Amino acid sequence: MVQAALADGTAHRHSVFEVFTRRLPEGRRYGVLAGTGRVLEALESFRFDDTTLAWLEREQVVDARTVAFLADYRFTGSITGYAEGEIYVPHSPVLTVEGTFAEAVLLETLVLSILNHDSAIAAAASRMTSAAVDRPCLEMGSRRTHEHAAVAAARAAVIAGFTGTSNLEAGRVYGLPTIGTAAHAFTLLHDDEESAFAGQVASQGVGTTLLVDTYDVARGVERAVAAAGTDLGAVRLDSGDLGGLAVDVRRQLDALGATRTKIVVTSDLDEHAIAGLASAPVDSYGVGTQLVVGSGAPTCGMVYKLVAREDASGTLRPVAKASASKSSVGGRKSAARRTDGEGRATAEVVVTGSADAVDAWGRVPDGHGEHGGPDVEGELRALQVPLVVDGSVESRWTGPSGVHLASARHARSRDELPRGARRLSAGEPAIPTELVDLD
Amino acid sequence: MVQAALADGTAHRHSVFEVFTRRLPEGRRYGVLAGTGRVLEALESFRFDDTTLAWLEREQVVDARTVAFLADYRFTGSITGYAEGEIYVPHSPVLTVEGTFAEAVLLETLVLSILNHDSAIAAAASRMTSAAVDRPCLEMGSRRTHEHAAVAAARAAVIAGFTGTSNLEAGRVYGLPTIGTAAHAFTLLHDDEESAFAGQVASQGVGTTLLVDTYDVARGVERAVAAAGTDLGAVRLDSGDLGGLAVDVRRQLDALGATRTKIVVTSDLDEHAIAGLASAPVDSYGVGTQLVVGSGAPTCGMVYKLVAREDASGTLRPVAKASASKSSVGGRKSAARRTDGEGRATAEVVVTGSADAVDAWGRVPDGHGEHGGPDVEGELRALQVPLVVDGSVESRWTGPSGVHLASARHARSRDELPRGARRLSAGEPAIPTELVDLD
Repeated sequence: MVQAALADGTAHRHSVFEVFTRRLPEGRRYGVLAGTGRVLEALESFRFDDTTLAWLEREQVVDARTVAFLADYRFTGSITGYAEGEIYVPHSPVLTVEGTFAEAVLLETLVLSILNHDSAIAAAASRMTSAAVDRPCLEMGSRRTHEHAAVAAARAAVIAGFTGTSNLEAGRVYGLPTIGTAAHAFTLLHDDEESAFAGQVASQGVGTTLLVDTYDVARGVERAVAAAGTDLGAVRLDSGDLGGLAVDVRRQLDALGATRTKIVVTSDLDEHAIAGLASAPVDSYGVGTQLVVGSGAPTCGMVYKLVAREDASGTLRPVAKASASKSSVGGRKSAARRTDGEGRATAEVVVTGSADAVDAWGRVPDGHGEHGGPDVEGELRALQVPLVVDGSVESRWTGPSGVHLASARHARSRDELPRGARRLSAGEPAIPTELVDLD
Repeated sequence: MVQAALADGTAHRHSVFEVFTRRLPEGRRYGVLAGTGRVLEALESFRFDDTTLAWLEREQVVDARTVAFLADYRFTGSITGYAEGEIYVPHSPVLTVEGTFAEAVLLETLVLSILNHDSAIAAAASRMTSAAVDRPCLEMGSRRTHEHAAVAAARAAVIAGFTGTSNLEAGRVYGLPTIGTAAHAFTLLHDDEESAFAGQVASQGVGTTLLVDTYDVARGVERAVAAAGTDLGAVRLDSGDLGGLAVDVRRQLDALGATRTKIVVTSDLDEHAIAGLASAPVDSYGVGTQLVVGSGAPTCGMVYKLVAREDASGTLRPVAKASASKSSVGGRKSAARRTDGEGRATAEVVVTGSADAVDAWGRVPDGHGEHGGPDVEGELRALQVPLVVDGSVESRWTGPSGVHLASARHARSRDELPRGARRLSAGEPAIPTELVDLD
């Protein structure tokens, strides 16, 4: 595409691309935007090195002019978007990329890969932390997903309320709290369970978490308290009927005087299993597989669509695909969330046209479309923030500070949703999308 | 675990870890091992750099002795496993890692991340190429998965029979055939469809593939042939009722004299949609989302279990978790595939004990267990090959040559499956697993 556009002169047309979803995964009530910080980090190093350029030329993937364009590539446009961690619904314009066609279209795969992956994990994580209420959720899924995706998954989980991760690389890069655990292999390595527990306590202190289900759980608990004393930090259960076992283990720990020793459960948990353990005496949840595969929704259908571009006369024109299905609304969008008098979200207002979704007085400008508009009661909160200005990345959205901001944003945005939005059962989007055309 | 094992002296016990699955994803008839070559590539650079070591020390993740151990880390053990691309079933020992406990346990997350991800993609890809029969399948899913996972997904797809990928990085690194396509954005960039097609043909030649469904398909086809002539390479359909549209488009192309112009279809295809298009005049399938998310099975439940280790006296002993669920069979396994007189696979023979699964005469040694053994008719094919010998990686399994071998292995192994194994409907594993204990 870039080669052909460079050849016929359209590559330099000023263009606006938007990222949005046409629908949420089946039954989901809201989406969670995650990955924006990673997009910005990736953008800062998005270059074509000599090895790559030589390969593209040698294999005749693109012509010499295109290789020259790629050699000098550096994004000089601007990007706005929802703050990372924000809730989204169908047609929310979560990211808007503006620049020449060639510089902006090159980012499509990078942007979509990151946002589709990270947002899928964050949406699953948000359901899990909702189900866990005040009990900590710990991310332990690295081994169930691609080795680099695992780092991104840990980051997305923390944005959506997880309190820590077993992925040390994610901890190092993003400043996330890290946790560790002993596996069955550690117990099996030793000649007996007693010596395994003694070794772990000697090395990690009595505050450690001992895995008690390698042989017999009741014997394991007994040996755990014998090894660490009643100040033992926690025991972990990784198999069997976790709810029933937790009741037995709590009773046994209390009887042994280990009343402050916590119970951590793991083993193919998802949001439904977590909800099912609400009344069990469990202190925290370690979640693996179902978190990193998005708990039934491993990607989230975000698309990157050209919505406006200059025509031959230099005028910016809205554009949209017109055929049967997959049609889009042309034109750059701005977006705001409407809340009622009690601060509950009631609608996503997505405005097409030259004006912003929210004027200086917190109102949708006049001329709203069929789905309602400024005459509805309530406040409006503008949703888009500047992320890249003329090629320069706003650094607060990247690295550990980005994760910190995103995590806080997610908590606030989720709290604002109407009652019922956090139910796990299948349903419609938590708030309707109002498409308003001001042109 | 490593810190505690270094402290209590068990870290250096000779240990054997095995990778296997307890079951296939629901309804799947076979698994496809993929990622072995990537494990070997990753192993060659698996080191802890100064930045990481400093972080581990500063954050007190591990103690000074463990940091020192990690600073010198280099895997010196041996790895055997199924050849990449091979079919597997429950309990197939697809990878066996042998070394000290500390050096082998450190590889768990890396090994499982790669194999769980890549094998999930390969299994989905294998179903798709089965459904497509002789029509090419093209990998186009990068934007629906993590940006690095996308490269691995393209590699896994080609191993399982895909003929090319749109992921250029995967093409560059693994020598895969690459393909490109124009998006709706390219058409929308231009003032009209005619100028978009003219630009693409001028740049890419008449052999290019024109996307004809941005506006009206029939008009798009007409304009495509007008732009490129009757030697136009292909047209692409990306929306609507693909089967019905393909019939109309084929008729129109033939009427215009473009009888050799091919029809490529894309748009949320999975193996069932591909099978449903078997009688439509389609020439190739571009597959995205459902490929890279494993078409309903995004991970494959591989585990990395300690099956044997030295005891205090220096004797190698089988070990296994004994509690309620998730129990395992202790001891190192060897494996062979049994075939009948016509070369059809009839069973996976997994032997525990000191001997190999297959002796020099292609028989299971005497002393087989309850599930049958050498008295059954047929040939045995040993399944495990050396991958790493005393820390040295067998390089033919890595890079482009590894993909080439894996792709050939997959084709042969799948051809050997019993009739019916390639049906898409849910069912039992294609061949039963015979667990034979020779001890």
